[in-house]
Amino acid sequence: MHDMTRDTPGAMPDRDGSLPAFPPPRRGIAPFDTARLDALMEEAGLDALVATSRHSVQYLLGGYYFFFFQGRDAIGLSRYLPAVVYCRARPELTTYIGNRLERYELEQGRIWAPEIETVSWGTVDAMERARAHLARMPGPPKRIGVEPAHLPADAAGVLDAAFGALVDARLVLERLRAVKTPLEIAMLRAASDRVVDSMLAAFGTCAPGMTKAQLAERLRLEEVRRGLAFEYCLVTAGSSLNRAPSPERIAEGDILSLDSGGNYHGYIGDLCRMAILGEPDQELQDLLGAVQEIQAQARAVVRAGVLGGAVQEAGLAGVAASPHRAHLEFLAHGMGLVQHEAPWLTGRGPVPYPGHNENAPLEAGMVLSVETTLQHPRRGFVKLEDTVVVTPEGSEGLGDAGRGWTRAGRD
Amino acid sequence: MHDMTRDTPGAMPDRDGSLPAFPPPRRGIAPFDTARLDALMEEAGLDALVATSRHSVQYLLGGYYFFFFQGRDAIGLSRYLPAVVYCRARPELTTYIGNRLERYELEQGRIWAPEIETVSWGTVDAMERARAHLARMPGPPKRIGVEPAHLPADAAGVLDAAFGALVDARLVLERLRAVKTPLEIAMLRAASDRVVDSMLAAFGTCAPGMTKAQLAERLRLEEVRRGLAFEYCLVTAGSSLNRAPSPERIAEGDILSLDSGGNYHGYIGDLCRMAILGEPDQELQDLLGAVQEIQAQARAVVRAGVLGGAVQEAGLAGVAASPHRAHLEFLAHGMGLVQHEAPWLTGRGPVPYPGHNENAPLEAGMVLSVETTLQHPRRGFVKLEDTVVVTPEGSEGLGDAGRGWTRAGRD
Repeated sequence: MHDMTRDTPGAMPDRDGSLPAFPPPRRGIAPFDTARLDALMEEAGLDALVATSRHSVQYLLGGYYFFFFQGRDAIGLSRYLPAVVYCRARPELTTYIGNRLERYELEQGRIWAPEIETVSWGTVDAMERARAHLARMPGPPKRIGVEPAHLPADAAGVLDAAFGALVDARLVLERLRAVKTPLEIAMLRAASDRVVDSMLAAFGTCAPGMTKAQLAERLRLEEVRRGLAFEYCLVTAGSSLNRAPSPERIAEGDILSLDSGGNYHGYIGDLCRMAILGEPDQELQDLLGAVQEIQAQARAVVRAGVLGGAVQEAGLAGVAASPHRAHLEFLAHGMGLVQHEAPWLTGRGPVPYPGHNENAPLEAGMVLSVETTLQHPRRGFVKLEDTVVVTPEGSEGLGDAGRGWTRAGRD
Repeated sequence: MHDMTRDTPGAMPDRDGSLPAFPPPRRGIAPFDTARLDALMEEAGLDALVATSRHSVQYLLGGYYFFFFQGRDAIGLSRYLPAVVYCRARPELTTYIGNRLERYELEQGRIWAPEIETVSWGTVDAMERARAHLARMPGPPKRIGVEPAHLPADAAGVLDAAFGALVDARLVLERLRAVKTPLEIAMLRAASDRVVDSMLAAFGTCAPGMTKAQLAERLRLEEVRRGLAFEYCLVTAGSSLNRAPSPERIAEGDILSLDSGGNYHGYIGDLCRMAILGEPDQELQDLLGAVQEIQAQARAVVRAGVLGGAVQEAGLAGVAASPHRAHLEFLAHGMGLVQHEAPWLTGRGPVPYPGHNENAPLEAGMVLSVETTLQHPRRGFVKLEDTVVVTPEGSEGLGDAGRGWTRAGRD
């Protein structure tokens, strides 16, 4: 009979021979660590949470996010706004507020939350439902945690008028997600392997005269063929440092970079690989070699227990020791459901970050993106971006294929 | 040399032999009707606008939306928040606030706005820039129009603290977009044709034992192959009325429905088509015939100058006259960059809608979605959804192929 692995054109099984999938939810059983969430909420002084970002909703629902609005959220004069309402230390009161079309998903038992409402359409009616649930909770809760960048102004107004003490809960939710489960790591591996495989396939189709936009479009198709949701593609060709897909044409001898994000069930593969339409000369070998060496130096220090800042420091030390240092940049950052997330390793994040920062030890199960960029004024853009999982003994790369000069156009 | 039309596997040229594309912007020349926007703003008492929804930003930038964040908007602890700042009757002061990665697009002249800043990262720093621009504008403007469902709470806080009079500008922006240009109609035709062609291709791959999820995934791939951004797929099989992609298997003799949205440069194709894995019996022919007839009756009244409400009335009259009326639903609504947008034809929209409603005449260039749904308790889900453009003489269908019983599995 039909098997998704064989049925999706080009789909590759994961390392153990199957594609990772979220287990079916059990109604009333939270699919995340409620004790940890309760502790983080207590530390932040939160009585309840109203999570509305895509990544938080997916995380708190054990992988579920309504398929209908994955492509866009606008609908009519408003937008889709799902919400998970969680009361500290009372997971049995968790409520999910969804769109009325989600009754199809509810019928199939896709949502674990003890209470589920699939009647709303826009932002305001969704938050009116959330407010009503909060008002019925014991207490009732006074300090309500929200995600200010992912809560529309009109929706915030509904909660604000009722409770008047909305608190920024971003760090609580992000710290909850900082250490990945084996299943999450399998998802990230699936995404990373498929992004790189898609890049190698797209490089294979290159020919002189193809535009950068066509190469990016080809990569999009290859990612979708492998079951990913394509997110973006940055692309360079020749000596230009401009990374936008464009009508610029690829020429014989050009070096090429593809830096793309694609996700598998929301988990992001984000890597950068290099190719050349021809053969690399010694200078190009040296330039990519310099980038590889800095990557290796930074990856070598990754291990559970090491301070997060050590990874960034090792990369910066590699840059400082390189003859190409004037054109080099290095960055290490956490990743998972969001492209840049905990742990924060550079000490210069957008907000002071408590825990999971450069002064805290790495923990097994954290996932890091490690990227070295060489913007060479004469030869062009040379970059590697890798993904590594922190383990007790060191680290494990995800999607580590194709890290040298791939010969393009050999399809 | 390479030509995108031939290069994208399966890509079809548009009716005139080419794929529609936005013309390159001219710096300082607004690509929309500024006089109309000024009039709508005056009517609503707005001095300035800060547009932040994806569709408004794209519209006001003549088709441009930064590719990097088309797949997701979350980044780090915040999200991407582009903004077009427009001062009434002063288009020459228009400012675009973008992300720092957008400098690649700026270098290529993709943005018409006289002033452009590509330095922000999240919601708050983007709005701080918008606020600074507003403060420098003559007046300075006092009543600032925003899109409350598409403006994050923290971003709204930045503007609110400075101006204190944020006004809902959704209707102004939506009414600006209500009548489509020939280029926009070409985009909608390209999207509609390709969604239907993708459905016919996906139906062709059906076989007993395939799951609904696999059929939806196949449709996604077919849409991407044709250059569309896939949005969603609702799918039914057999007598079930549940429309979620799921592990439910398709069986010999099943009727199938695919209802999918896919966009071309943001313009949505949203149609529903029927197929059967076998041959339809007389009852199935009659059921789809009843749906076709109601669609025909509603479409027949569409013409510039007719009251918008007449389309919905004609559809409802068709339902009332049908022996299947107990299981029938009819809906007509405007569409374009958003799945449901002006004109609003049913008289029961989410907010009182001034103009472009059921009591206003249809105008040439408006685009309507017309949908009849028959949820038959014994035979299953039978639906057609069509897209029509209002013309001076009547209407023109977009993506009108495959409106009968397609025989599935004939690939």
